[in-house]
Amino acid sequence: MVGKQKHRYTLYYVNARGRAEPIRLVLHYLGAEFDDTRMEMDDLKAVIEKKAPMKQAPFIEVDGGKLVLCQTTAICRYLAKSIQPELWLAGATKTLSAKCDMVVEGMYDIYNDVMRYNYEKDATVKEELSQRYWDKGKLRLEFLERILETSKGDYFLGKKLHWCDLFVFGNMGSMLDVDNRMFSATPHMRKFYLRMRNLPELKPYIQKYWPKPEFNS
Amino acid sequence: MVGKQKHRYTLYYVNARGRAEPIRLVLHYLGAEFDDTRMEMDDLKAVIEKKAPMKQAPFIEVDGGKLVLCQTTAICRYLAKSIQPELWLAGATKTLSAKCDMVVEGMYDIYNDVMRYNYEKDATVKEELSQRYWDKGKLRLEFLERILETSKGDYFLGKKLHWCDLFVFGNMGSMLDVDNRMFSATPHMRKFYLRMRNLPELKPYIQKYWPKPEFNS
Repeated sequence: MVGKQKHRYTLYYVNARGRAEPIRLVLHYLGAEFDDTRMEMDDLKAVIEKKAPMKQAPFIEVDGGKLVLCQTTAICRYLAKSIQPELWLAGATKTLSAKCDMVVEGMYDIYNDVMRYNYEKDATVKEELSQRYWDKGKLRLEFLERILETSKGDYFLGKKLHWCDLFVFGNMGSMLDVDNRMFSATPHMRKFYLRMRNLPELKPYIQKYWPKPEFNS
Repeated sequence: MVGKQKHRYTLYYVNARGRAEPIRLVLHYLGAEFDDTRMEMDDLKAVIEKKAPMKQAPFIEVDGGKLVLCQTTAICRYLAKSIQPELWLAGATKTLSAKCDMVVEGMYDIYNDVMRYNYEKDATVKEELSQRYWDKGKLRLEFLERILETSKGDYFLGKKLHWCDLFVFGNMGSMLDVDNRMFSATPHMRKFYLRMRNLPELKPYIQKYWPKPEFNS
């Protein structure tokens, strides 16, 4: 996309996948050039203090600060509509957009529970959160699995990729770091994960920044 | 809007504000007729088991089940775009839509922490969650307060109401039930709350279903 790109994007986060990864995947999938600013935590804190709309990362600057956005889902949806709009990555109809949003929010519920467990320091609370993400997570993953299973194509909404696919895939990567049993009962999601890793738009980036896949089928 | 309404909507939830309230407010604001199905928990569980896409409520049926959506934000955004689209309640530009989403997600982070505290039964965990929602919530509310304060109109994005206004307002109502100190340091949000209660599109519904406001200015 280099050369005809209309806007400049600078993404700020630490050098980890986390909540920035779905944004990076949307940008890579759309072939957009962007500054993938991966900072040390202390340096990031200083930048957040100065520039971030809600004092949190990830956040993105468009055209050097003409627009500054935070919140992963808001940023992904914006980029999905803005870069190569003819691909309709955020859904070509109101119904597809709503289904895309629904998959995203369903996955985010699971991811948020897992990450809350991951960062908790108090042992008692951590144990409670572990139980929660495991019980609720399993139940919720079943529904995502069902959507993929009954999809009439390789993606959540059928034959066409939407940003919910990139969002789910990005979160799966981080969740596997925390608990590699998570997707043991979801074979369609495992296959989806491996397929997404090999998309030509994503593969060079994945090979450089992601660890090897935790499962093979 | 009765008479020219294109679709039929049935919303399923318990008889409480909770996660259904932003959806109800969007529907009322747009003057849409809908079945506001408020069920006893046991009855709702049976309906969820049978019909809900991710086995959770709220969920909404469009035209008797031709489309079924869950997840509050996905449903609100869909309705904001579908009913009276000429009002552009989800944003008339990509930038306004992204800012609307950002406000929604910022508010949802606070709301989710408060509700997680509210429903927690284990005393140790509850204490930890109390500290969290109070510390993080105060910080996050400050940014929403700043956005309102610097807005060039009565709403988060200026002179025009968007669904983020209805979403924030709906969540404020439920949060005040849990902790009425929450908005002590955000006078613009308090005024916003009182103004929203009096919108002619919402007032009849609010007077019937909401308790009296917890503060007067």
